[in-house]
Amino acid sequence: MGGDFGPRVTVPAALQALASNPQLKLLLVGDPETISPLLANKNAELLSRLQIIPAEHVVSNDMKPSQAIRSSRGTSMRITLDLVKSGEAQACISAGNTGALMGLAKLMLKSIEGIERPALMTLIPNLKQQKTVVLDLGANINCNSSMLVQFAIMGAVMAEYVTGVDNPRVALLNIGEEESKGLDNIREAAMTLRNISAINYIGYVEGNELLTGKTDVLVCDGFAGNVTLKTMEGAIRVILSLVKSPGGQQKKSSWLMKILKKIFKKWLLKQVMKRFGHLNPDQYNGATLLGLRGIVIKSHGAANEHAFKAAIDQAIQAVEKQVPDRIAARLDAVLPKSE
Amino acid sequence: MGGDFGPRVTVPAALQALASNPQLKLLLVGDPETISPLLANKNAELLSRLQIIPAEHVVSNDMKPSQAIRSSRGTSMRITLDLVKSGEAQACISAGNTGALMGLAKLMLKSIEGIERPALMTLIPNLKQQKTVVLDLGANINCNSSMLVQFAIMGAVMAEYVTGVDNPRVALLNIGEEESKGLDNIREAAMTLRNISAINYIGYVEGNELLTGKTDVLVCDGFAGNVTLKTMEGAIRVILSLVKSPGGQQKKSSWLMKILKKIFKKWLLKQVMKRFGHLNPDQYNGATLLGLRGIVIKSHGAANEHAFKAAIDQAIQAVEKQVPDRIAARLDAVLPKSE
Repeated sequence: MGGDFGPRVTVPAALQALASNPQLKLLLVGDPETISPLLANKNAELLSRLQIIPAEHVVSNDMKPSQAIRSSRGTSMRITLDLVKSGEAQACISAGNTGALMGLAKLMLKSIEGIERPALMTLIPNLKQQKTVVLDLGANINCNSSMLVQFAIMGAVMAEYVTGVDNPRVALLNIGEEESKGLDNIREAAMTLRNISAINYIGYVEGNELLTGKTDVLVCDGFAGNVTLKTMEGAIRVILSLVKSPGGQQKKSSWLMKILKKIFKKWLLKQVMKRFGHLNPDQYNGATLLGLRGIVIKSHGAANEHAFKAAIDQAIQAVEKQVPDRIAARLDAVLPKSE
Repeated sequence: MGGDFGPRVTVPAALQALASNPQLKLLLVGDPETISPLLANKNAELLSRLQIIPAEHVVSNDMKPSQAIRSSRGTSMRITLDLVKSGEAQACISAGNTGALMGLAKLMLKSIEGIERPALMTLIPNLKQQKTVVLDLGANINCNSSMLVQFAIMGAVMAEYVTGVDNPRVALLNIGEEESKGLDNIREAAMTLRNISAINYIGYVEGNELLTGKTDVLVCDGFAGNVTLKTMEGAIRVILSLVKSPGGQQKKSSWLMKILKKIFKKWLLKQVMKRFGHLNPDQYNGATLLGLRGIVIKSHGAANEHAFKAAIDQAIQAVEKQVPDRIAARLDAVLPKSE
């Protein structure tokens, strides 16, 4: 019930998700007095699959994670994660404070054995009309090489079961393609990955390949991942804004030409959006906190209804594909046993 | 005379630069037998301002920097840097091996006092029709906080004298805007910058602001800088390719509609390019190795004629604006004296 807009975005998104997923049941954790009016006069069948779980408090967006965790009792975030822990819910979706969600989720749900620290992962649409699994996006700004290897294994599982790629290509984000390039942890992770036969490791990939679909899984530390994702989103938004309002000098045109130009501009924009829309960051949403013994999805705080529904859809997929179990099984098979 | 295409790009670019800069003199360092034929039948006045300096060898692109430096005697890169060192040339422009150029330039020209390590800097066009100074782009993948502070000072000098901004805004690239965010070296650099009154430090900026012109100078370590620059370039290229070929289903149109659509598509594209073209990475080129006691410009290896001329223009600007001297003076004024 957090995020920048609260229930007036999340509740309509929840109703949309219920309408398009007949098996779905949703628990809305938050203030009943705010939520209930938004459900008035809605379809009874949808409402029958929806339940309000009262929560008195909310983790505020500007709270530091450590502080938020200490004072989390009674917050919607804590109650939701409790529901996942107890098995009453199969996934938690939140548009709230990212740091608090990661910290609290890790504390309450615990990491899968073999995972040092969970990673934020998202699916980025690419030019090949597929999706690229990218992680970590900011959960861990300092990563040693074994964490990068764990991210690679989790990413490969995501690509195999969620984006549906056989033998997914896994690459490390770096600033050159030669083996000798980059930071020590990246080079060390490369050496390890080259020796794991279950991983289709293809080497280093640079930032300019983020959208080209050169790799199915792109692994990086949380700092670089955040930089590359935000840079890409920023660049696309800038270009999109320019495409939407190109030029301004149409003074010499007659009224007929003006109308014709307007019509064809609309038509061309539609064509552009048809091919380009899937890359528009407003059209996708939801980062999964991978590596936990439970499913936790982080929505953009500023997500609109459509975007928040995308985050719910991502949770549904993770539940259906049993992502945490698949990751645990893969780690068990790939990594050397600790005992 | 290096780069992916050698003299058949650099020589015509040199002639173009001579034509548009009547004061310019150029020394072409390389194999006379390859260069001379490309100068046949060219304008005599231009040729009078051009001189070929013979070089027997070239630093190959796949050589490691250390190896390239050891065996640099007689290479065009080494001879060019020697000309800069001796004052016979005022700037070196190369499309060759980046690592070798950086290593050799540092060895031969030395760093300005107060600069631990030179940084690669480029000017990125932004939405405000201005340019953003971004550094480091990959010369130093591990940077301590004092290096970041030095980059900030050098960047501010560039913005002031080259892009012509009064009291330029300086920001650190980070993964959040809150003070507590990011890596230790970034937070430490922020503390220092906040206390340097000569620097207009505005705080952290995220990757999505790279093109918006929120800051005049963006400071980062070479790894993050390389990632953000390449991600931006890649995203723009991808979108540009989509804008250039939108949609494909025009089967239902009549021949007249097809022709009309074609005409208007061209018109709209022209409008888009008019506003967007300055952000196209193919339209700018040239990274300056800032912090040396001399001017060294690195062109993209794959630069075409137009792009290589842009690198020459960047060198001319650096010479005219006396960038190394300005940096030395600013460091002297801002940083505490070591003696």
